[in-house]
Amino acid sequence: MAKQLTKRDDNYSQWYNDLVIKADLAENSAVRGSMVIKPYGYAIWENMKAVLDKMFKDTGHVNAYFPLFIPKSFFSKEAKHVEGFAKECAVVTHYRLKNDPNGKGVVVDETARLEEELIVRPTSETIIWNTYKNWIQSYRDLPLLINQWANVVRWEMRTRLFLRTAEFLWQEGHTAHATREEAQEEALRMLDVYVDFAENYLAIPVIKGDKTENERFAGAENTYTFEAMMQDGKALQAGTSHFLGQNFAKAFDVKFTSNEGREEYVWATSWGVTTRLIGALIMSHSDDNGLVLPPKIAPIHVVIVPIYKTEEQRKALAEKALEIKKKIEARGYTVKFDDRDTHKPGWKFAEHELKGVPLRIAMGPRDLENQTVELARRDTLEKSIENMDGLEDRIPALLDNIQATIFNKALKLREEKTTHADTWEEFKEVLSQKGGFVMAHWDGTTETEVKIKEETKATIRCIPFDSVDEEGVCIYSGKPSKRRVLFAVAY
Amino acid sequence: MAKQLTKRDDNYSQWYNDLVIKADLAENSAVRGSMVIKPYGYAIWENMKAVLDKMFKDTGHVNAYFPLFIPKSFFSKEAKHVEGFAKECAVVTHYRLKNDPNGKGVVVDETARLEEELIVRPTSETIIWNTYKNWIQSYRDLPLLINQWANVVRWEMRTRLFLRTAEFLWQEGHTAHATREEAQEEALRMLDVYVDFAENYLAIPVIKGDKTENERFAGAENTYTFEAMMQDGKALQAGTSHFLGQNFAKAFDVKFTSNEGREEYVWATSWGVTTRLIGALIMSHSDDNGLVLPPKIAPIHVVIVPIYKTEEQRKALAEKALEIKKKIEARGYTVKFDDRDTHKPGWKFAEHELKGVPLRIAMGPRDLENQTVELARRDTLEKSIENMDGLEDRIPALLDNIQATIFNKALKLREEKTTHADTWEEFKEVLSQKGGFVMAHWDGTTETEVKIKEETKATIRCIPFDSVDEEGVCIYSGKPSKRRVLFAVAY
Repeated sequence: MAKQLTKRDDNYSQWYNDLVIKADLAENSAVRGSMVIKPYGYAIWENMKAVLDKMFKDTGHVNAYFPLFIPKSFFSKEAKHVEGFAKECAVVTHYRLKNDPNGKGVVVDETARLEEELIVRPTSETIIWNTYKNWIQSYRDLPLLINQWANVVRWEMRTRLFLRTAEFLWQEGHTAHATREEAQEEALRMLDVYVDFAENYLAIPVIKGDKTENERFAGAENTYTFEAMMQDGKALQAGTSHFLGQNFAKAFDVKFTSNEGREEYVWATSWGVTTRLIGALIMSHSDDNGLVLPPKIAPIHVVIVPIYKTEEQRKALAEKALEIKKKIEARGYTVKFDDRDTHKPGWKFAEHELKGVPLRIAMGPRDLENQTVELARRDTLEKSIENMDGLEDRIPALLDNIQATIFNKALKLREEKTTHADTWEEFKEVLSQKGGFVMAHWDGTTETEVKIKEETKATIRCIPFDSVDEEGVCIYSGKPSKRRVLFAVAY
Repeated sequence: MAKQLTKRDDNYSQWYNDLVIKADLAENSAVRGSMVIKPYGYAIWENMKAVLDKMFKDTGHVNAYFPLFIPKSFFSKEAKHVEGFAKECAVVTHYRLKNDPNGKGVVVDETARLEEELIVRPTSETIIWNTYKNWIQSYRDLPLLINQWANVVRWEMRTRLFLRTAEFLWQEGHTAHATREEAQEEALRMLDVYVDFAENYLAIPVIKGDKTENERFAGAENTYTFEAMMQDGKALQAGTSHFLGQNFAKAFDVKFTSNEGREEYVWATSWGVTTRLIGALIMSHSDDNGLVLPPKIAPIHVVIVPIYKTEEQRKALAEKALEIKKKIEARGYTVKFDDRDTHKPGWKFAEHELKGVPLRIAMGPRDLENQTVELARRDTLEKSIENMDGLEDRIPALLDNIQATIFNKALKLREEKTTHADTWEEFKEVLSQKGGFVMAHWDGTTETEVKIKEETKATIRCIPFDSVDEEGVCIYSGKPSKRRVLFAVAY
C-alpha cells in the first residue's frame, strides 16, 4: 500500500514522523514551528481533554480564561522566572498594518508601536498572579482552584510534531492556598491525577518523583514530574506539577488576612500537561503497522468492514452491520461502518491499522450464512471467528483486555530497559548500548549533574518517590549518596 | 446589600458593566482591551460550547486546530480580505527577549527580528485555505467540514467586556465544497444551527437575513446574519455565516478534480460565534436585580438555602436539603446547597439573584415540620410554597416554563419595539424617541445606506429572509424599493 511507514528498527525518529503524518494526526504549517492538528489528532486531544477536565472538576477545580498577551514587565517581577521563561518568546510590538505605499500588500504601520511590548504567553503565572491580587483579600477567598485550557508559545529552535512545537495546546492549573501544607498537598494531588490519567487512560506507565533543583520550573520551590519511557528507550517528561511557595505571591504582592487576623503571602501551585501527550501516546504503543491506541482514548473503538462482490451481498451485509453497530454503540462505544466503495477491504484493513482502531470486524457473505464475523485486535493483530449473536456483550471485556494488554506491554518494556548501574563505566555502557532508564547514585550537586549530561547526554529525569534508601557512591564523583536517582536520555 | 447595581433605566450601559463585574463574569485585565473571563462567566461559555459543539458534530463537522500566527503576506492574497482584516492586528516582529544591559528587567533582542512579521489571527481563512490546498485534490476529498475553537485578536480601540474585546474566544467553521449549491446550503444550514441555538438555548429571539454588500464579511460573496434586540432597543449581531464563493480557493490556488475529470476551484463557507454571545445573553434577559439565565445555559439550575438559628436546626435542614438535592440532580440538573455560615439567608438570596440561578429553594424549621419549601423563580421573582414530596418531579416542567417565559418576554419586547416607518421624518423620530428595530424601504445603494448611518447612526442590520415583497419608496432617496429592510442602532 501507498502509506508504507519507515520501520522502527530502521529509523525510530523517521518512523514517528511518518506515522504522525500518515495517520492524519498533524502536519507542519506555513509558520515555522507551528503545527496544524488535523481532525483525527484533534479527536484524540478532545478525548484527553474530556477525561482530564472531569478529573479536575472532580477535585474541586473550575475553569477560567486569562489573556493571551502578557506585558513584558511582568516577566521581570519574579527573578528566577524571567531567566527561565522570558527569553525565547513571540513579542508583539505593533498593533496595526497599512497598505504598502510602494506597491502591493501590507506593511507594519511604524506609527502604531506599543508603548510596552506584549509577550505571547509561554505560561501564565505572571498574568494570573497579577489578577489574583484583586481576588484574594481574606482566608475566606482561599483556596482558589482554577484551571485554564489554552494555547501557549515558546520559540523553540528545533521542533517536532507534538513533542516540541512553538505553539502548543495545554491546560495550566493555578491554585492559591492559605498554607504551605495545603499548597504542597495540592501539587501532589494533581501529580496523582496526572499519573492516574497516564496509566489508566493512556496506558502509559510512569515514574513519579521530584525534579532536581537544576531541572525545576523557573520560580518553583519544587517541581514534581512523571516520566515515561518511549519504545526507543528515551525518556519523555509527560507533565509536571509545581509547588511555587510564596514566590509569585511576593512578586505580585498577593497577601491575605488569615483567620487569626495576620497578613500573610499566599501559597501557590501550578501544573500542566500539553499536546505533547499525544506524542507520548504514539511513541509508547504504536508499531510498524501504525498507531496502537488504548480504547479509553481512541476516537473510534470498532470499525466494521464489509466484504462483498455483488450489490445484493453489499445490501445484506450493510443491514447486518448496521444492526451490530447499533448494539455496540448502545454500550457507549464509537463504531464506524466503513462502507466506502472506493477502496478494497485490504486497503481499509491497512488504513484502520494505521489509525489504531482497537477492534476491526470484517464480514462477508459466508459470515452472513454462518452468523459469524472475523474479529481482529489491533494491539496483538490476533484474529478470531466470533458468533454474531451476543457479540456486543463480549466487546466491553475485550476492549478492557486490550487496554490492559497495551499497558502491560509498555510496563514490561520499561522494566526490561531499566538498569541499575554502579560505576561510571557501567553507566556509560548501559546508556550507549542498551539505553533506557538507569538507576544510579548521584552526589546531589548540580555540578555533577551538568557534567554527566555533557559527557553522556543523560539527565536526571527525577528522584523517584519510591527510590529506596540505600548507601552508595555517586557514579561520577564517588561522593556518598543515600538513594538512586533516575537517569535517561530524554526527548 | 453591597453589590447594588445601577438601574437599567438610569444608565443601561453602566448597569451592564456593573452586572458583568458584580456577577463575577469577567473583568478587565492588565492588558488593554483583553478581559479575564472569570469562572462563573467561563462556565456559561463552557455550556454554550458543549451545546454548539454537539450541534456541529450532529451536522457532520469535526474539530481541528490551526496556528495562532499567520504570515503577513497571506493577508494580501485575497484582495477584499486584506482591506477588512489585516489592519488593526497584533503584529509579532521579534522572537527573543534579553536581559537589559542597562539595568533590571528584559528588553527586546533586536537581533532576533523575524524575516516576515507574523499576525496574531483575527480570523483564520487565509492560513486554513493555505492548508486546504494540500488536503484537497479530488472530489473525493470534499466536502471538508471543519470547525475550530480558538482565541482571536482584533485591535479594537473602544472595548467593552464580552461585547468588543481585543482578544476573544470563538469558533470558526471553515468548509470546502465541490459546488456552489452545496456551499450555499452549508452557509444557510449553519445559520439555522445558530438560530436554533440562540432561540432554544439562549432564549434570544433573532431575525435572520442577508447582510447588505456594504456590511459583508471581507472576502465573502454573501454574509448571513442573525440579529437580536437588546432591552435598550439596540441591535446586536449575534453571529454570521458566510458564503465565500471561490474567493479563497482562487487566492490560495485550491483546485480539485471533479467527478467528470475537470479541474475546478473549490467553494467555501465560514461561520462563527464568539464570547460576545455572553453579552447578548446578559443584555437580553437580565434585570435590576442581576442576571436572568435561561435554564438550558445556566451553570447552576437550583440553589437550596437553609434558614436556621440553632445547630440542631442546621443539621436537620442539611439532611433534608441534601436529600432533595440528590433527587433533583438525578433528573440531570445542577443543584447547589449553599450552607455557608458566613452569610445570612437574605444576603444569599440577593447573591443568587445577582447570579441568575433560575430556581431557589429556601427551607426553615417550620418547613421541615410541614414538609414544605419556599420556591422562588428568578425570572418572575414569584414565590410559592411547595410540598417537598415529589418536588423533583415538578422541577423539569418548571425549568422548561422558565425557559419559555424568558424567551417570550424577549420576543414581546422585540415586537413592541419593532416599528414600520414610511417617511424620513417618521424614521428619524422612531429612532430618536422609541428606538428599537425599524422596518423601512431602502433603495439598495451603499450610498444611501452610508448617508442614513451618518445622519442617524442606524445601520441596516439585515435584509430579513421573511421580509415580504411590497412596493415602496426609499425613506431617504425616495427611489423605488421592493421590500423593507431592518434598520437599528447597533452594538
